[in-house]
Amino acid sequence: MKKSLASLLICGCLSVSAQNQDSLQLRKIFDYYLTQSKCYSNLEFLTTKIETRLSGSPGAAKAVEWAKKAMYEAGADTVYLQPCMVPHWVRGAKEACYMPDPKTKKKLEYAICALGGSVGTEGKVVTAEVIEVKSFDELDKLGTDKIKGKIVFYNVLFNPANISTGKSYGEAVKYRWMGPSRAARYGAVASIVRSMSSINNDFPHTGSMGYDTSVKSKIPCCAISFAGADKLTAQLKTNPQLKLSLQLNCKILADEPSFNVVGELKGSTEPNEIIMAGGHLDAWDLGQGAHDDGTGVVQSIEVLAMFKKNGIKPKHTIRAVAFMNEENGGRGGMAYFEDTKKNKLKHIVALETDAGGFNPRGIAVDTTMGAFKIVSSWKNLLDPYFVQYIKKGGHGADIESLQEIGVPLIGFEPDGQRYFDYHHTADDTFDKVNKRELELSAGVIASIIYLIDTKGW
Amino acid sequence: MKKSLASLLICGCLSVSAQNQDSLQLRKIFDYYLTQSKCYSNLEFLTTKIETRLSGSPGAAKAVEWAKKAMYEAGADTVYLQPCMVPHWVRGAKEACYMPDPKTKKKLEYAICALGGSVGTEGKVVTAEVIEVKSFDELDKLGTDKIKGKIVFYNVLFNPANISTGKSYGEAVKYRWMGPSRAARYGAVASIVRSMSSINNDFPHTGSMGYDTSVKSKIPCCAISFAGADKLTAQLKTNPQLKLSLQLNCKILADEPSFNVVGELKGSTEPNEIIMAGGHLDAWDLGQGAHDDGTGVVQSIEVLAMFKKNGIKPKHTIRAVAFMNEENGGRGGMAYFEDTKKNKLKHIVALETDAGGFNPRGIAVDTTMGAFKIVSSWKNLLDPYFVQYIKKGGHGADIESLQEIGVPLIGFEPDGQRYFDYHHTADDTFDKVNKRELELSAGVIASIIYLIDTKGW
Repeated sequence: MKKSLASLLICGCLSVSAQNQDSLQLRKIFDYYLTQSKCYSNLEFLTTKIETRLSGSPGAAKAVEWAKKAMYEAGADTVYLQPCMVPHWVRGAKEACYMPDPKTKKKLEYAICALGGSVGTEGKVVTAEVIEVKSFDELDKLGTDKIKGKIVFYNVLFNPANISTGKSYGEAVKYRWMGPSRAARYGAVASIVRSMSSINNDFPHTGSMGYDTSVKSKIPCCAISFAGADKLTAQLKTNPQLKLSLQLNCKILADEPSFNVVGELKGSTEPNEIIMAGGHLDAWDLGQGAHDDGTGVVQSIEVLAMFKKNGIKPKHTIRAVAFMNEENGGRGGMAYFEDTKKNKLKHIVALETDAGGFNPRGIAVDTTMGAFKIVSSWKNLLDPYFVQYIKKGGHGADIESLQEIGVPLIGFEPDGQRYFDYHHTADDTFDKVNKRELELSAGVIASIIYLIDTKGW
Repeated sequence: MKKSLASLLICGCLSVSAQNQDSLQLRKIFDYYLTQSKCYSNLEFLTTKIETRLSGSPGAAKAVEWAKKAMYEAGADTVYLQPCMVPHWVRGAKEACYMPDPKTKKKLEYAICALGGSVGTEGKVVTAEVIEVKSFDELDKLGTDKIKGKIVFYNVLFNPANISTGKSYGEAVKYRWMGPSRAARYGAVASIVRSMSSINNDFPHTGSMGYDTSVKSKIPCCAISFAGADKLTAQLKTNPQLKLSLQLNCKILADEPSFNVVGELKGSTEPNEIIMAGGHLDAWDLGQGAHDDGTGVVQSIEVLAMFKKNGIKPKHTIRAVAFMNEENGGRGGMAYFEDTKKNKLKHIVALETDAGGFNPRGIAVDTTMGAFKIVSSWKNLLDPYFVQYIKKGGHGADIESLQEIGVPLIGFEPDGQRYFDYHHTADDTFDKVNKRELELSAGVIASIIYLIDTKGW
């Protein structure tokens, strides 16, 4: 079918006019975020008024109650608590890692922390020689002869030359996750991994690990700070027989009941079609879980507030989800998936924000080509708000399984340069979040949700 | 002239191949910046080992010597000290601003700081009623009747709704610069301006002001912190007659001799054509001048190191310039301009980096359309390093006058969201600079210089 020039011109004008309308509406959304939104004050409460909130902890239970209240305050019609059983790992008293200083004979201490899921040393101190490796290949070459009875030290650099810090994390994290069992297979008594970060300071970075069920022995494992790793490797050069003493007081308790928190604004014309934005409520116990992922939670909750407080009635049902147990089990994500499947809920899209409360940088869309093209067509609208790219692929862990039932996924990508400075450390605190950066990213998230609701596939 | 298909294909392939070559070279530049450059350690020295470096101060003199040494260490063939006379304003003992607490009768203090260039209160305390205004219009309407004998409080919000913080600064800064004389014209005895920032804390932000020569009286003037301004305006609502006491111990001394520091790598084929990158060495006295503009200085110096340490012989002469007196006089910029004019030096381009050591965001080119098009054609090359835009206009104050003699100017634009949190405050310290962000932006600056040297106009 051919279109006349006149009809093309009319279509063109309508399209420009629609684009202008959208542009004006987005500007209103950002006015709201930069002058009225509650992202920052909500984050302050969650991170500073509630204790740490690792799954199964009293803090996590309080955070669930807080999220429920915050969603109602944001204007949710309904808030559900969606049950899930979560692992309950506790750190116990602060860990210790030391060796006698060869000069003073006093304890020379290293900044370490147990990895989440690690067994403890059962009230004892494990003292053994340290063997340093830079790869699994190197470990395998050393074999049982060289490793048995020792502490394996995975000293693998978080590659500073990668532009994407996420790439460096992806390359290094296997030593945290699989390192303990790989070392135990050769008879190691414990393992230490260099923290997953390029920042040279003394904060150790925790994170989850998993014991390989094919390896009988579960050995205690910890992360050492960047500065500690540098110190240790230097000392090993002058004293390859040095012995470290290690005490970890962590243990794994029985699973606990917990919840995802799901808040809804019912859709005005398509109430059975859900547009969802989520972050995760649980956080590692060392810091305040500000960037990981308090910011994602408050940004998701604020999507509801953006609609409600600006009098915008969504066509579809808008959901904010505060997932439980992203950090060490993913049980919240699984419960959400099971509930969605069981109740045959239709999701138009699921968006996760779990990469810190930094400036906007991009959007990753993991979906059919059609939906990707639609989101890409909004690039010009989002460009003034620092969305540099819209690309395919990438999303958060909590929403991953929804892909199995055909839900298009979006991962919001803030600037990643500072994320791994704080990630899983005692330094991930409220004061490290910049109000404007948090709000601008929240504005981008809300804008995407708004555009999908009004124009989406 | 028509080209044959074959010749077009050959040109196309050559162009793609050249693009690939450039892309590989840029990747090498970033490898250098992220793994070997001295930006961060240089910044640490400049900001933490040398005292504050406002023009005319002992710290500024030491910074000049340091910059000379750092440029030689970076590999400069030659380093010049380019003389200029600079204003010498000193803050003196810490300022005071207080009122008797109506309840306790103790002093209720406000966080203020004298504006650069302000006269002091000559050892006395100025006590007067405060009159708050939100614009010059409002001031003019109040007139002499309402203003005479009072302290004018310019309570103008740094607009948080602007996406560009530079825009908010541009809108508010006139109250800092012109406010004192505008108030003095109506008989005010002092003026206070709300700090130019959207961050709610208790750091006052200094900055330069200028007395209008048509107004006889020079009144003392200061900035009050964001939190202090909120407190004061709330108190004025309940007690419009409240009196503040103000003591400023600053004074203007005689001009001092100082210097720009200019380091050069001589061009291999076009030694008389200069490509310049600069930042400013002087900084306000309250903090360490880390983001403003220690980062610009170390990034500029590192351009020399990038060529030298990677064995790249520049065609043109590459200059790094550490300007003196950007903050309160611009005398360094003028001296550079005069020297350029007098010696008929030919600059291919002058680039300034004076907006903090944050992540790259964009490049502003103020030049003829031809050169702008050439820089724009490098967008794809720079995109992986977070250059979201290349636009026309914008540059630093030190290079502005070079435009008069036809020098194309480039302003490097890092992300601006956090800049005014620290700008001109005691909080502008080394620890607020992220190593990777500093290095990535330094890499972009060096890449632009490299591309202009190899392919430029």
